[in-house]
Amino acid sequence: MAHLSWPAYAERIANGAVVLIPVGALEQHGRHLPLGVDFMLAEAVALATAEHVDAVVAPPFVYGYKSQLRTGGGPQFAGTVGLDGHSLSSAITDVLRGLARGGADKLAIVDGHYENQMFLTEACDLAIREFRQSGRDGVKIVQARYFEQFDEAILKRHVGGPPLDLAYEHAGVFETSLFLHLFGDLVDMDAAPEQAFKEFPSYDCHPPHDDWVPATGALSDPHRATAALGREIFDACVQGMVRILETEFGPEGDGSN
Amino acid sequence: MAHLSWPAYAERIANGAVVLIPVGALEQHGRHLPLGVDFMLAEAVALATAEHVDAVVAPPFVYGYKSQLRTGGGPQFAGTVGLDGHSLSSAITDVLRGLARGGADKLAIVDGHYENQMFLTEACDLAIREFRQSGRDGVKIVQARYFEQFDEAILKRHVGGPPLDLAYEHAGVFETSLFLHLFGDLVDMDAAPEQAFKEFPSYDCHPPHDDWVPATGALSDPHRATAALGREIFDACVQGMVRILETEFGPEGDGSN
Amino acid sequence: MAHLSWPAYAERIANGAVVLIPVGALEQHGRHLPLGVDFMLAEAVALATAEHVDAVVAPPFVYGYKSQLRTGGGPQFAGTVGLDGHSLSSAITDVLRGLARGGADKLAIVDGHYENQMFLTEACDLAIREFRQSGRDGVKIVQARYFEQFDEAILKRHVGGPPLDLAYEHAGVFETSLFLHLFGDLVDMDAAPEQAFKEFPSYDCHPPHDDWVPATGALSDPHRATAALGREIFDACVQGMVRILETEFGPEGDGSN
Amino acid sequence: MAHLSWPAYAERIANGAVVLIPVGALEQHGRHLPLGVDFMLAEAVALATAEHVDAVVAPPFVYGYKSQLRTGGGPQFAGTVGLDGHSLSSAITDVLRGLARGGADKLAIVDGHYENQMFLTEACDLAIREFRQSGRDGVKIVQARYFEQFDEAILKRHVGGPPLDLAYEHAGVFETSLFLHLFGDLVDMDAAPEQAFKEFPSYDCHPPHDDWVPATGALSDPHRATAALGREIFDACVQGMVRILETEFGPEGDGSN
Amino acid sequence: MAHLSWPAYAERIANGAVVLIPVGALEQHGRHLPLGVDFMLAEAVALATAEHVDAVVAPPFVYGYKSQLRTGGGPQFAGTVGLDGHSLSSAITDVLRGLARGGADKLAIVDGHYENQMFLTEACDLAIREFRQSGRDGVKIVQARYFEQFDEAILKRHVGGPPLDLAYEHAGVFETSLFLHLFGDLVDMDAAPEQAFKEFPSYDCHPPHDDWVPATGALSDPHRATAALGREIFDACVQGMVRILETEFGPEGDGSN
Amino acid sequence: MAHLSWPAYAERIANGAVVLIPVGALEQHGRHLPLGVDFMLAEAVALATAEHVDAVVAPPFVYGYKSQLRTGGGPQFAGTVGLDGHSLSSAITDVLRGLARGGADKLAIVDGHYENQMFLTEACDLAIREFRQSGRDGVKIVQARYFEQFDEAILKRHVGGPPLDLAYEHAGVFETSLFLHLFGDLVDMDAAPEQAFKEFPSYDCHPPHDDWVPATGALSDPHRATAALGREIFDACVQGMVRILETEFGPEGDGSN
Repeated sequence: MAHLSWPAYAERIANGAVVLIPVGALEQHGRHLPLGVDFMLAEAVALATAEHVDAVVAPPFVYGYKSQLRTGGGPQFAGTVGLDGHSLSSAITDVLRGLARGGADKLAIVDGHYENQMFLTEACDLAIREFRQSGRDGVKIVQARYFEQFDEAILKRHVGGPPLDLAYEHAGVFETSLFLHLFGDLVDMDAAPEQAFKEFPSYDCHPPHDDWVPATGALSDPHRATAALGREIFDACVQGMVRILETEFGPEGDGSN
Repeated sequence: MAHLSWPAYAERIANGAVVLIPVGALEQHGRHLPLGVDFMLAEAVALATAEHVDAVVAPPFVYGYKSQLRTGGGPQFAGTVGLDGHSLSSAITDVLRGLARGGADKLAIVDGHYENQMFLTEACDLAIREFRQSGRDGVKIVQARYFEQFDEAILKRHVGGPPLDLAYEHAGVFETSLFLHLFGDLVDMDAAPEQAFKEFPSYDCHPPHDDWVPATGALSDPHRATAALGREIFDACVQGMVRILETEFGPEGDGSN
Repeated sequence: MAHLSWPAYAERIANGAVVLIPVGALEQHGRHLPLGVDFMLAEAVALATAEHVDAVVAPPFVYGYKSQLRTGGGPQFAGTVGLDGHSLSSAITDVLRGLARGGADKLAIVDGHYENQMFLTEACDLAIREFRQSGRDGVKIVQARYFEQFDEAILKRHVGGPPLDLAYEHAGVFETSLFLHLFGDLVDMDAAPEQAFKEFPSYDCHPPHDDWVPATGALSDPHRATAALGREIFDACVQGMVRILETEFGPEGDGSN
Repeated sequence: MAHLSWPAYAERIANGAVVLIPVGALEQHGRHLPLGVDFMLAEAVALATAEHVDAVVAPPFVYGYKSQLRTGGGPQFAGTVGLDGHSLSSAITDVLRGLARGGADKLAIVDGHYENQMFLTEACDLAIREFRQSGRDGVKIVQARYFEQFDEAILKRHVGGPPLDLAYEHAGVFETSLFLHLFGDLVDMDAAPEQAFKEFPSYDCHPPHDDWVPATGALSDPHRATAALGREIFDACVQGMVRILETEFGPEGDGSN
Repeated sequence: MAHLSWPAYAERIANGAVVLIPVGALEQHGRHLPLGVDFMLAEAVALATAEHVDAVVAPPFVYGYKSQLRTGGGPQFAGTVGLDGHSLSSAITDVLRGLARGGADKLAIVDGHYENQMFLTEACDLAIREFRQSGRDGVKIVQARYFEQFDEAILKRHVGGPPLDLAYEHAGVFETSLFLHLFGDLVDMDAAPEQAFKEFPSYDCHPPHDDWVPATGALSDPHRATAALGREIFDACVQGMVRILETEFGPEGDGSN
Repeated sequence: MAHLSWPAYAERIANGAVVLIPVGALEQHGRHLPLGVDFMLAEAVALATAEHVDAVVAPPFVYGYKSQLRTGGGPQFAGTVGLDGHSLSSAITDVLRGLARGGADKLAIVDGHYENQMFLTEACDLAIREFRQSGRDGVKIVQARYFEQFDEAILKRHVGGPPLDLAYEHAGVFETSLFLHLFGDLVDMDAAPEQAFKEFPSYDCHPPHDDWVPATGALSDPHRATAALGREIFDACVQGMVRILETEFGPEGDGSN
């Protein structure tokens, strides 16, 4: 979308294209992955999805909710930069309003950051409330985490072991494989930590206990990650997104569903 | 910064690097330029600046304040997506807080969108107020519009005529030249409008008079734009940014000034 | 705490008591359970916990975040009343500030509503940020969902079948058993739905698809619920909370950990 | 309402029941009364009112606006926990919205805390503004302090002396009598202070002069309080509330007025 | 203060002057008084007070909280313009911060609008909270309604009858007398309503019952108002304010109290 | 407007009068001008404009956005008191809402403070958004800085030299001339600074470099200011405002344009 002129974009929208909005984070991902993992993967999934359905991809909303200890390692790592919940929700509501005002009524958020979910939910709810007050009842917003749109059997087949808890998959096999597949030259597997799967207590503490998190910032062991696995996961996530959009907006992108 | 791991980023910061934060907009730029002009140019200037001073570039904050009729064409164009003022200020304050918390105390906002200025000022002011309450008196934030960091004599020499009003330079000679230089394949000069320089009344009206704006969305005539002029402007802007950072943070990036 | 005079409360706090803050919701729980399930269970767990550790229980913050389709059935049921995210976070931050101002520095939130978690996290984070600015570094806040403080093996042993997804346990075996144990006369098992375990899509839609949810409002089949199972779960949750408080605030409630 | 299932609640609302929303505070009430006085009395009045009119009682919104020196003793007492004005107004607006969305259009706030009034007024005003934008013109909200719904002649007849200023009645004859009648075992008359009626200056000071308030926290002398007086006041308040609801929503609860 | 240059103002502050901040409203005051009554009277009292103590008067904050039916006649009258509670509190907090930042630590709000009180209280409380976080513990804020700083015996002696309820004194004997004394040519006694004292119910309704208010907008009968009474009231209010400032900031304005 | 009774105001509005809303600031203006310059001039222009078109003038919104170094000298001067951006926008939105609710649909903001512009724009945009949701599509708001409504040729003819940058005209020839014309006895030309035109860097720094600003607070040399020039500028500004109102609301004030 950032590369389209407004008339080109307007034509796409008028013809029924969905607008995909990648939302990510700027957050540490261990010593072997870069800080941009979450928004880069969300954008990559969105772009690949847009090759299969009639969709344009908005530039990513880079900054997400504050990293939490048990799902992202927490704020104690340099380079982890998060927004307050209200700021994030307000800004995303504004983005949704702006897109709807410009004629788009098929919107889909592609979320790449575990901690974002509820604040995106709030943003969508506030936007829908406002749309109803403004007589824009026809706008529909899909909200999906790309990393929940694949069959975990893939991971199990490649990696073995018990079912993974995606909450712990921060900088682990899942994200590392995707990065090896998509942005291999940004991965430094030599720096990948050798560590057992991290187990967290079942609660949170504020201020956070920094020592709950491995010093590397990775919450699980990424060594079994491979580009081949990354490709398989990626394709599955993209197919999952495609199915969602077809279900919600019609296989022809005509919103008939 | 998005491509660095957190330890690599932490080392840069510890050694005194400035963090540059490009802020842009998603906003129509006529029929010949794409919607992403403002954040793409802000990021390009930031990246080039970082080749001359010790700086890392944060991923761009893509979405800016709502487009205004007299400086950006206004909200009536599809694809123009802006944030409310409070959302923008809050989110940028959060970004500044997050960077400072991670150890960075040399921050510089590179603004690429005319309407952002006062809301970025508010964000910086609120951040500094909070830093003082938190005992972080050492953080300094530079706030600069990249498009004010060059000598307008350049434009005059190339283009002739009266001094340009940068407020009207939306999708005009200035931005088009920069885009021809940096992202030439995203410019469609065949679609560039033939129009006299737009003159606006000296006030605003709400709701906006859409007919004040040319149907193309360009506020001035971009035809005299060239890649050569773009290069000259770009280099001047980058040099301007470099001088600012050296002035404020020291030629060695050691903050001695 | 609501039944203590201020001097009696002040003495408890001065002697090191933890303040437990139950947070719940007013939300449909099927035809067989009442609207108050979430805050009533959170308060019941808190009160039982306070019999084992040195703690006082604040009156419950009854109203929680807006019910979501995939975890609570959603807003389409009469009697489901939720707060916006910012309202909830702000009010809880205020409660934490007020307790800390009154001398309490051992605080623990006992959360009984699935959708509350991130907004409570935000409230705690904002409170801690403010405490630091105010020189109140000694305040520690534990944030725990009571329903994650037991071994799911209990459920499996009683109920059999695959591991339960607590997100779906809304008005299911888990909550119904607890209610049979604690508030049996408020349960109408004759009204309990016969339904297969509900499976949801892997994404959200706004406005929500009301037809994703069974007309009863229960997301899974509560028929295998028993008071005996409820007792076992309840005791396990209370023990879990006790362990957390002892870990974080010391076995003597002296905060030595 | 917390004890009703959603279908039972929905039926009551469909048949025209009013929803009563008790709002209170957690605030010191001298050495002889507990911290929960305000929300406990508001709830008690609401429950008794609901025996005389067709009404359901929502669970109390426990936490109210910050205690002020001249009406509640102020924040210097441990156990006094108040919300910021905006938090309280926002949360109550949300509660009103949620109830209205679920079909209730006869709403009544029963306020038990002196300092709440204007912030509840703000909440109601914001809710009505939003309802109008949403085409929900039929919702009516009554806002009443229960302690203003009786004839002060009762107090005068029992207690004698000059007319009481209810602002000073914090933990005095009025509230103590009500508590003796309703929750007698939570009153410790031995701890009741012997003190002359407190006279305050005619202005406020920030930060507050803590020494304006008796060390006990009671603003007037509660010794003449009796359970008999409490019963008379209570019945009068309930009758007052009943009259209000009948006036505003019709004697049959049919909203014909 | 508006007429002083900054060095002149700075000198006054350095010498210990109090800054008085009149806060009013723009609100109907019957057919015989103008819309500006509340801020004009607050400013007049502040200016007269400043002749007796060492004080400078800030320009009035004209706009106050929304007019309520039972104290100001309500929003249904053209020309009644009020702020939302949060807007008013935030703006006044900002004014207090700005004055404190400029060196003033003796601040006094002179309130002329009945409905403002709690939102000014909130503003002062938030300002003091922030001052403490910023190490500005020395700032003291007095908050006084000018119309509570006189002995009601004056009114009784002039007017006779039962004690007045100031809440009903909107556009009645009190304000009309003051206006006759201070701004006599803005009073149109021929337009003053002949009406019995208005009695209101003991609760509020939202949306408001406009017919509770006399069509004139005056809540009581102003006919016994005289300029002589106005002078006596005015002098008493000013003396009351002077006493408050001397009590709180010392007779020499040296803050020794 | 402050001097009109509500029926008199209502009649003016019903007959089509525009409501002018002066917005200013309390801000240092050098040693020779008082702190109230911005709101006093905005109000003076509005009052004079109202003599030529059918308009009533609301009392000024005195307090504006925070003074910035490069346009107003910045916050380091005693007596400079500014609002946060969100507070200002919210309060002005409220004023616009209140005026519209009272029947006015021709509104015009007369801005006298350089830094206010974008926050007033935000206020107008939010008000219009709300008006549309409320079915008040007919409200039109003009937003004009009075100081941009004259031909700079006037200044050039009187003063000579290069075109002035109004951003630097803070307490310079422009404002000083206007004050000499309108409020001559509040000008102390003996205190006017002898200084070269101030040149600022092309960026901002936070916290601000106080030494960028002359110690006097004046950003340019006011010595060539005269009352005669002030009269000419003033008349031109008023005529400019008149033209704008006639253009937008019709020469007969009938809104036909």
